[in-house]
Amino acid sequence: MAYVTIRDVAKHAGISVSTVSRALNGNGRISKETKATVERAVAELNYIPDSRAQAMRSSKTRTVGLLVPDIRNGYFAELAYSIQDALFDAGYCTFIGTSSESASRQDAFIMSILAQHIDGAIIVPQGESSDALKLLVERELPVVFVDRRVDGLDDVPLVDSDPLPGMRAALEDLRAHGFTKIGYVSGPVHTSPTLRERESVFRALACEMVGEEHVFVESTSFDQASCGSVLKRMSDAGVRALIFGYSQDMLRAMSLMGSMGLRMGEDFSMVSFDDLELFRLASPQVSVISQQVRQIGCRGARLFLDMVGEPERGMRAQSRSQRVETIYVPRGSVGDAR
Amino acid sequence: MAYVTIRDVAKHAGISVSTVSRALNGNGRISKETKATVERAVAELNYIPDSRAQAMRSSKTRTVGLLVPDIRNGYFAELAYSIQDALFDAGYCTFIGTSSESASRQDAFIMSILAQHIDGAIIVPQGESSDALKLLVERELPVVFVDRRVDGLDDVPLVDSDPLPGMRAALEDLRAHGFTKIGYVSGPVHTSPTLRERESVFRALACEMVGEEHVFVESTSFDQASCGSVLKRMSDAGVRALIFGYSQDMLRAMSLMGSMGLRMGEDFSMVSFDDLELFRLASPQVSVISQQVRQIGCRGARLFLDMVGEPERGMRAQSRSQRVETIYVPRGSVGDAR
Repeated sequence: MAYVTIRDVAKHAGISVSTVSRALNGNGRISKETKATVERAVAELNYIPDSRAQAMRSSKTRTVGLLVPDIRNGYFAELAYSIQDALFDAGYCTFIGTSSESASRQDAFIMSILAQHIDGAIIVPQGESSDALKLLVERELPVVFVDRRVDGLDDVPLVDSDPLPGMRAALEDLRAHGFTKIGYVSGPVHTSPTLRERESVFRALACEMVGEEHVFVESTSFDQASCGSVLKRMSDAGVRALIFGYSQDMLRAMSLMGSMGLRMGEDFSMVSFDDLELFRLASPQVSVISQQVRQIGCRGARLFLDMVGEPERGMRAQSRSQRVETIYVPRGSVGDAR
Repeated sequence: MAYVTIRDVAKHAGISVSTVSRALNGNGRISKETKATVERAVAELNYIPDSRAQAMRSSKTRTVGLLVPDIRNGYFAELAYSIQDALFDAGYCTFIGTSSESASRQDAFIMSILAQHIDGAIIVPQGESSDALKLLVERELPVVFVDRRVDGLDDVPLVDSDPLPGMRAALEDLRAHGFTKIGYVSGPVHTSPTLRERESVFRALACEMVGEEHVFVESTSFDQASCGSVLKRMSDAGVRALIFGYSQDMLRAMSLMGSMGLRMGEDFSMVSFDDLELFRLASPQVSVISQQVRQIGCRGARLFLDMVGEPERGMRAQSRSQRVETIYVPRGSVGDAR
C-alpha cells in the first residue's frame, strides 16, 4: 500500500476507526488494552498520522515554503542554507523552490505551496508583483520577503540589507588608492528594486566624492556579452576602478578578463557586492561589499517564526521589517591607481 | 480567511457543497446557470481546489521531493537545478530539502514529504540506510536515487556516474606530464560508497600505471585542518601530482595553497572531480574529471517520470539504473614535472 491510513490501522487492529482516532488523539475513554492494540498496529504498519488531516484540525504542518531565484548563485545558496538551518532548529521542515528569475516559475511554486497547506512562506520575490504573490499575501498566511521588496506589497515584512555603509567604505577605499574616475556596473536593474536602490546610493555618494563628471554607471542584462561591452566602454572612458552591484556580473567580468590577459588589481581595481566563496578563492582575492547573508537569513527565519507564533498578527508590520548593514571587506583586487 | 474551502464557495454561491463539487468535477447534471454561478464564486474567492483532497482521489499532487546534501556545494546546486528544470517542463513542482550530510536531517525531510502526500522523491542518499529511507522505499512511492547508492537498498533505481573513464584519462595526462608518483585525496570516504568506489578505481588504475610503491592515498574529514595535513604529508613524500576525489577538498587545498604561496600547476599539479564554476574561474583553471552533472540530473528526472507514468511498476528496476560516463577536461592546473 502506498499510504497507510487510519482505516488500515483500524482494520489491522480489528477495531473501529473512531476508536483508533480517540486512542491516537488521547480523547475519550479508552482501555489500556485497546490503546496497546492500536499502538502495536501503528508500529507494525509504520503508520504516520496524516499531516493533511492534522492540518485540517490544527492548521499546522510544520513545513515552510522557501523561494529563491537560483541556488546556483552562491549568495542565494547561502541564504537558503541559513534560513533552513534556523527553521530546522525550530522544528520546521523547509521546502525550497527556485524561480530561475522567472515570474511564471515563481507563481507555479506559490500555487503548489498554497495547494499543499504549508504553514507559510519565505520568499525572495521575483521582479514585480504578480497574481500569485498577491494571492499568497491575501490568504493571510505568514509571509516574509527577504533580500528584495516588491512595489505595491509594502506591508509584507521584509529583511534586506542597507547598501549605504558598505558602499561608502568601498568608495573611500578606491579614493584612498588614488582613483578619481569610478565606474559602477549595476546589473539587470529592470528586474529588481534592490539593484535600483544600490545604483542610486552609488550615484549619490560617488557624485559627492569625485564629482558627477567622473561617475560612470552602466547596467547589464543576464549575459556575458553585455558585461563585456560594459567593460570595454568603461576602459575606453579611462575608468580603472569598478564597483559591481550584482555579483554574477563580477564573475562574468573575471572570466572575460582572464581570457583577455587583464589582471584584477592591476588593469582594473574591482569591488563586488556579496562575499562569495569564489571571491575568497580567487587570486588576488576580491574586495567585497558583504550583505552578511547569514544574518539576513537568520533574521528572516526569526521574523517568520515570530509570525507563526502569533495567531492574531495584528500588526502587518512594516515596522517589523529589518535592514542588515552591509560591510566592506578590503582585499587584493583593489590596487594603486597608476 | 487563510484558506478558501469548497464550503466557502458553496456559501458564497448560495448553493450546496455537493452541487459545487459536481460542478467543479464535471460529474452529474448541472444547469449552465448553476455552473456559471459556481465559476463566478470560484473566481471571486480565488478558490484553489485543495490538492490534499485531490490527492485522496487521484493520488497525484504533481509535486516531487528532492533531497540533496548541501546546495552550497556547486555540484549539488547544479544537480538540483537540472532535476528541477526537467520536472518543471513535465508539469511537476519540486520541493528541495537538504540533509547537510546529516542522517537525522535526511530522515526529517523524508518524514515531512511522506506526511504531505507528495507523488514521489528523488534522493541523494546520506550515508548508510536509515529507517526513514527504508520506509520511503517500502511505501512503494516512486523513488530514484541519484549520485550515491545505499548498501542494502540495491533495488532502488539509481543514476550515478562511472568514475573509470575520467580517472584513466586524468592519470594518463599526469603521466604524460612526467609524474611518476601520484597522490589521491579521497575525501570523507566513510560517508559515501561513491567516494569509496572512486578510491578503489584510482588504486587499481594507478598501481597498474606507476606501480604500487608510487601510489599515495589519503582520506580526509569535513574540515580544512585534515586537508592541510594531507597536503603536508603528500609534499613530504615527494608527491607533486594530486587527484582529488571530493571537490570540496580541492577548494580547501586551493585556499590553503594560496595562503602558503604555493602555485597550482607549478608546486602541485592538481586534478579534481566535478566541473565547478569555481574551477573554470580559477587562475590557472583547474583540470577536472567531470561527472556531467546535468546529464545525471536529466536522466534522474526522466527515470522518475517514467516511474510515475507506470501505475504498476512491475520491475523495481536495478536493470533501469544508469551510469553516466565521467570525462576528463585538461586545463592549466597540470604542469610539467620538474
